[in-house]
Amino acid sequence: MRIALLGGTGDIGEGLALRFARDTDHEVLIGSRDPEKARAAVEEYEAELDARGAESNIKGFVNEMAADRADVVVLSVPPYYVGDTVDAVADKLDADTILVTPAVGMQGDEDGLHYHPPGVGSVTELVAQRAPDDVPVVGAFHNLAADALANLDNEFDLDTLLVADDADAKSTVRNLANEIEGLRALDVGPLANSAEVESVTPLVINIAKYNDGMHDVGVKWL
Amino acid sequence: MRIALLGGTGDIGEGLALRFARDTDHEVLIGSRDPEKARAAVEEYEAELDARGAESNIKGFVNEMAADRADVVVLSVPPYYVGDTVDAVADKLDADTILVTPAVGMQGDEDGLHYHPPGVGSVTELVAQRAPDDVPVVGAFHNLAADALANLDNEFDLDTLLVADDADAKSTVRNLANEIEGLRALDVGPLANSAEVESVTPLVINIAKYNDGMHDVGVKWL
Repeated sequence: MRIALLGGTGDIGEGLALRFARDTDHEVLIGSRDPEKARAAVEEYEAELDARGAESNIKGFVNEMAADRADVVVLSVPPYYVGDTVDAVADKLDADTILVTPAVGMQGDEDGLHYHPPGVGSVTELVAQRAPDDVPVVGAFHNLAADALANLDNEFDLDTLLVADDADAKSTVRNLANEIEGLRALDVGPLANSAEVESVTPLVINIAKYNDGMHDVGVKWL
Repeated sequence: MRIALLGGTGDIGEGLALRFARDTDHEVLIGSRDPEKARAAVEEYEAELDARGAESNIKGFVNEMAADRADVVVLSVPPYYVGDTVDAVADKLDADTILVTPAVGMQGDEDGLHYHPPGVGSVTELVAQRAPDDVPVVGAFHNLAADALANLDNEFDLDTLLVADDADAKSTVRNLANEIEGLRALDVGPLANSAEVESVTPLVINIAKYNDGMHDVGVKWL
């Protein structure tokens, strides 16, 4: 399969790119609004994987081209760009493309981070609303710490939660997620259940803030 | 210390009563609106602990009397009774009594459970608003599965999250929670951070609903 990481040059996109490239045989497409930036990220990721003796298959494109070539498109962009990014690639998506959204709306104050969803209920549901009707949307990878993911020295044993209305798309993403070493994907039902999944993201950041020695906090459901 | 579990005859109250009685030297006071019901629960809990050779120190009272005698008062009542229960015991509380609230507002539909907080932001903050001004309020034990807690055969390794504006009260409850075998208390900051903590409760129930073999789901933050 071909996995496009739109906004794959930083944050959660970097970690997903490195882990998919290292742990799976799938082709990883780094998307960016700036194709030069995408290609620079590819070089950096290849060097990192090469230094660890890992085979990898990564290419860089402008977001639209990455989406056009992919079977699975991950919107690894900040929440305030999610809507625009969906619009930008909408005519490259179809019923055979799975759109994956890990973004979460948050607002910070002196106490910590707070869940701040859009009016439709969650960023995941916003993506489903903005995407063409026939494109299956899966919420996944919401609660993973970007730094923990991007540091390949970091071996973890973590869960990620999936929400989707399309069972086949959910199953495909579940299998993909489970291919990442140390990651287990759990099902949380339909998109309507996404707000509670997203609100774990500010919570893990607050836990890191208030507990000495805890950084890049992840979660395991037992 | 004396720990009162208002509504300690069922649900999360039962599990906390059994675990505090078994794992700590503190006196456990079971509160109920009906003192007979409280005393019946005490007999049941004592029999259960006795059968396991555990020493225990449990007494049953009407909620007001339990609150009056306690250093720590846990509101282990359903969320829609929380306000009334605080009002009922308010004149038994003072600056030396810590009020602990584990309740969460949820609403269910065919998809699963959804977080449904009161207008003030969370049940935890509602308790703080309804309690007398000088009474320190701590949110704790929100995300523990009642059945997992009440079954003493069940050994677990779980976390519970604490929110409070009063550092001393939080520290006292943290120590108490850590005395329960297999439980680790983590700090999530002030009461203003409680909504994200509470919304984990519908999430763990949804995870149990959608994943075969997962029941009474708990959480570990890593």
